[in-house]
Amino acid sequence: MRLKTATSAGETVEDAARVMARYAAGLGIRILEDKVGYYGEGDELLREYARWGDFPVISMAHDKYHPCQGLADVMGWAEWFGKGPGKGLDMSVLEGKKLLISWGHGALARSWCSVQEAMLIGSRFGMDVTVASPEGYDLDPQVVEWARENCKVNQANFAITHDVKAGYRGAHVVYSRHWMSPQAYRDGEFLKQAEIDRALKYPEWICDTEKMKLTDNAIFTHPMPIDRSHEVTDEVASGPRSCIYDVAENRLHVQKAIMALTMGNL
Amino acid sequence: MRLKTATSAGETVEDAARVMARYAAGLGIRILEDKVGYYGEGDELLREYARWGDFPVISMAHDKYHPCQGLADVMGWAEWFGKGPGKGLDMSVLEGKKLLISWGHGALARSWCSVQEAMLIGSRFGMDVTVASPEGYDLDPQVVEWARENCKVNQANFAITHDVKAGYRGAHVVYSRHWMSPQAYRDGEFLKQAEIDRALKYPEWICDTEKMKLTDNAIFTHPMPIDRSHEVTDEVASGPRSCIYDVAENRLHVQKAIMALTMGNL
Amino acid sequence: MRLKTATSAGETVEDAARVMARYAAGLGIRILEDKVGYYGEGDELLREYARWGDFPVISMAHDKYHPCQGLADVMGWAEWFGKGPGKGLDMSVLEGKKLLISWGHGALARSWCSVQEAMLIGSRFGMDVTVASPEGYDLDPQVVEWARENCKVNQANFAITHDVKAGYRGAHVVYSRHWMSPQAYRDGEFLKQAEIDRALKYPEWICDTEKMKLTDNAIFTHPMPIDRSHEVTDEVASGPRSCIYDVAENRLHVQKAIMALTMGNL
Repeated sequence: MRLKTATSAGETVEDAARVMARYAAGLGIRILEDKVGYYGEGDELLREYARWGDFPVISMAHDKYHPCQGLADVMGWAEWFGKGPGKGLDMSVLEGKKLLISWGHGALARSWCSVQEAMLIGSRFGMDVTVASPEGYDLDPQVVEWARENCKVNQANFAITHDVKAGYRGAHVVYSRHWMSPQAYRDGEFLKQAEIDRALKYPEWICDTEKMKLTDNAIFTHPMPIDRSHEVTDEVASGPRSCIYDVAENRLHVQKAIMALTMGNL
Repeated sequence: MRLKTATSAGETVEDAARVMARYAAGLGIRILEDKVGYYGEGDELLREYARWGDFPVISMAHDKYHPCQGLADVMGWAEWFGKGPGKGLDMSVLEGKKLLISWGHGALARSWCSVQEAMLIGSRFGMDVTVASPEGYDLDPQVVEWARENCKVNQANFAITHDVKAGYRGAHVVYSRHWMSPQAYRDGEFLKQAEIDRALKYPEWICDTEKMKLTDNAIFTHPMPIDRSHEVTDEVASGPRSCIYDVAENRLHVQKAIMALTMGNL
Repeated sequence: MRLKTATSAGETVEDAARVMARYAAGLGIRILEDKVGYYGEGDELLREYARWGDFPVISMAHDKYHPCQGLADVMGWAEWFGKGPGKGLDMSVLEGKKLLISWGHGALARSWCSVQEAMLIGSRFGMDVTVASPEGYDLDPQVVEWARENCKVNQANFAITHDVKAGYRGAHVVYSRHWMSPQAYRDGEFLKQAEIDRALKYPEWICDTEKMKLTDNAIFTHPMPIDRSHEVTDEVASGPRSCIYDVAENRLHVQKAIMALTMGNL
């Protein structure tokens, strides 16, 4: 079966990808939340474009991964634990640091891509990884398994907890963000309001100064935009240990690097 | 009477065109299907912009013509009958070749521009032209007359048939595409659903391998996007004699050429 | 309290501005009419972006001011009273010239920005300024006061009249444009239809040849788009003393100048 594009009546992805590959040096695709009918559909669409289009196809965030954000994240964290933003990069400073990825409650219903990417790339760079959420907010089991294996290879720790505070203990990087539940899609529909109603029942799941005191002077990170007062307090998000704007700036740098690496010789 | 622009309350095309001509080296206009209230309205709007704006006004496809597509078409066909795509152009290879423009059934209701353009430009380059459709799908009589005259000047053949297969015999280029009927607009409205319902009654009007066997090893061409399984089968559209992606790529080259010719000395 | 952005759930202007400042050399903001809930809200939003974003924030027209238009206006008028468009600028030719800013009736409900800007910048360059409108169309009292003070400093005249013809006497520049009443917003809503109904009751408030005869051979100016037959007749707008297209072109030049001045050394 030939997958169809989302926008044009009757056109196949094959046709769209093959034509675009004649025009452009590469293609960036972003497909999230209500633009897919089930988890994984965006990933399939990207791979279909990559199958037919003879040019680099870059994820600009889709339901499963967000590689540009992942690169910006680890670059920012390494800058903060190294010589500081803009002062050169030594990725090895991340080894042995503890990354807490904590679910945050909130009025949005966000895709898994950023947090799954952080879990994967943090574990690749030798970090201990803890994922914390209320029960019922499991992420993709395959991605969790890969992260666990990455940690094992690096002799690092991987843990999952449903305790709202436990993960903060000893953390060096706190990543507090909302994500949708595995029940967010049903029969091809994105049940946004149900997800919001459900998420708002966990007001204690917010990153605040009190919880940050349990950490090892952790930095606060977030892929932005932030749902302040739900995912994190203003005090933490705008506080002295927040690296959010430096991480955001890195999107510019890593995306230029990706283009240079994949399209620079065309 | 001064024509108004479609988007801005009260503004005349005169004002819009005169101001844009102060800012830009040229203007491209695309206006199709439900963006006009009757056949010819888009053409009038283009000419009104060209009347007032002291800069090149280029049709990017409108209800009547699609010159960029026509140039890409003949460039592609000449490449295929010559040395191959990207290997130099000799337009004279098109002389005496038979172009079949066949209506295709389908779930879209498409403007006449691309097929009328193909008819005009094919006949200008010395091709025999056959237009095939069910009864009731006549194109603009004035354009048909011009194509007929072009053929006469070039001692080529021009024919119209309502037989779904006859036109394929001896064809070198098969162009199978849906177009709307002359009844598509009424009282300023585009009757899209009625057009679709009507068109779906002719499922035999599809370009398939069986019909292609009647040709003189014809290439298959289409301005894209293709409504596969209606206008043409996958077997033909993705087959070894399909020139669709080469023609599509040519849009890039001919449009650059148009800009160089019309705006290059500004 | 942290202001939120208009488009993104939960994001603060602080976050949006700080991130954009990492990516871009500057930010242009345009916010008018139904995009604000009360007069002044757009101005507050711009200042909030400027407060947090460490880069130039330029108004591309908002409810209160339209600096780019003001610069284009005085540049155009100085060209017309000097050596002509494109022939060099001597702003002192505006000194002592009389600017009439006249309300025009019409089927749009336009923000105060352009006329307030004209009042401010005309008075800064030594022009006499007369504002004419039906009763009930007062502009921002603070801006009127600043214009009055500018005139005083320059020993020029500032006047307000509700007579539809009086202001034309001796005028050198006639600026006829619709603007909304101070009652246009109520409870956060923009009462567009009420404004239109109200404005259409004043058909005599149109700039026409008869009124232009009262002037000192005035030029006609307008920030465009023009609501012809309401704000001004075709005879005047397309007449030999209309500077509208030259003023429109100047937006290009002054905005380049603003970018050069504010972002050129980044």
